[in-house]
Amino acid sequence: MREDHVAIDFWFSIGSTYTYLSVMRLSDVERTRHVRFNWRPFNVREIMLEQNNRPFVGKPMKAAYMWRDIQRRAGMYGIPLQVPVPYPLQEMEFANRVAIVGASEGWCETYAVETYRCWFQQGLEPGSEPNLSDSLRKVGQDPSRVIAVAQSDKTGRELHAATEEAQSLGIFGAPTFAVGREIFWGDDRLEDALQWAEFGSLRSDGRK
Amino acid sequence: MREDHVAIDFWFSIGSTYTYLSVMRLSDVERTRHVRFNWRPFNVREIMLEQNNRPFVGKPMKAAYMWRDIQRRAGMYGIPLQVPVPYPLQEMEFANRVAIVGASEGWCETYAVETYRCWFQQGLEPGSEPNLSDSLRKVGQDPSRVIAVAQSDKTGRELHAATEEAQSLGIFGAPTFAVGREIFWGDDRLEDALQWAEFGSLRSDGRK
Repeated sequence: MREDHVAIDFWFSIGSTYTYLSVMRLSDVERTRHVRFNWRPFNVREIMLEQNNRPFVGKPMKAAYMWRDIQRRAGMYGIPLQVPVPYPLQEMEFANRVAIVGASEGWCETYAVETYRCWFQQGLEPGSEPNLSDSLRKVGQDPSRVIAVAQSDKTGRELHAATEEAQSLGIFGAPTFAVGREIFWGDDRLEDALQWAEFGSLRSDGRK
Repeated sequence: MREDHVAIDFWFSIGSTYTYLSVMRLSDVERTRHVRFNWRPFNVREIMLEQNNRPFVGKPMKAAYMWRDIQRRAGMYGIPLQVPVPYPLQEMEFANRVAIVGASEGWCETYAVETYRCWFQQGLEPGSEPNLSDSLRKVGQDPSRVIAVAQSDKTGRELHAATEEAQSLGIFGAPTFAVGREIFWGDDRLEDALQWAEFGSLRSDGRK
């Protein structure tokens, strides 16, 4: 049994629906596997608009399936939810600016969990009130202070830089798990990412 | 242990890339699980164009990821392949007309396996020569006879009717596994479909 922990970058954007499943699963995964997740907020919408990638807007059958699929899989993982929830978010960029502040101050994960819970369990949008301030208070932060930092040009530049870094890795959707230069897109690729982190391959014979 | 077999409709379109993985896995699944797959060819491109759903065309980063993801997962399943392969198909509709003929004559599955093998292992497009005639000969069919039947208006109407039936179930992509009215999209949802077919739920406590 190896005692070291492999690092997996968890590239996420608050506003992605399937990301709810990952946000709620990662702490359990860390307890049972030899991995540590680095929570990396970015603005997937910026990349998707640039790449003309609109998976659900104007696609009602695909959107209906997405809610049902998330509902079934949340049941499989034992994660509570009420779907559909408001989507897309009105203040997606701001929700992720707050996550960027959290990442530099050490409360990114807990904020992401709280704001997603509020969204998927109470139907209240991240990035907007009352979700925004409630989530910040739950993680022990003063909303007015954090909101001011999140509104600063510095935070805007940091979110943009993180988004460019994601794009340079080939990331086009959220969530994406990155193990070195290998990327795994979607909550449903978490198990593949774990396998890759541990063995450097998905093959049982270990070949790449 | 139940002795009966649950029916799962396997809605597939030759031309879908991820469908290669399912086509190569289903006979093994039938050997180990109490399920039987009904192979249901349809024309997913007709639905996708109607719904303005273009997942890879004009999206080079998403397409590059798709090939890598299929390559990794084929390795996980022990399925040989050489990617990328020619995509999209020039004669996708015709490849599926042939599958419709096969479904009514009892050689749909074997033809689908052969034409996909030829595509993903030798890089030759389904629906075009030499893949078309080679695959038909391998499943014991006379290419000139089958091609004539596939070109008939009757076969065209049958493929269109199957496509409308798929759409009425909420299907928008391929492959899709249907267990009654519940649909599971993607090769990576095969395990969910199997679980649903057996237990009517993905939850360990059996709730819906």
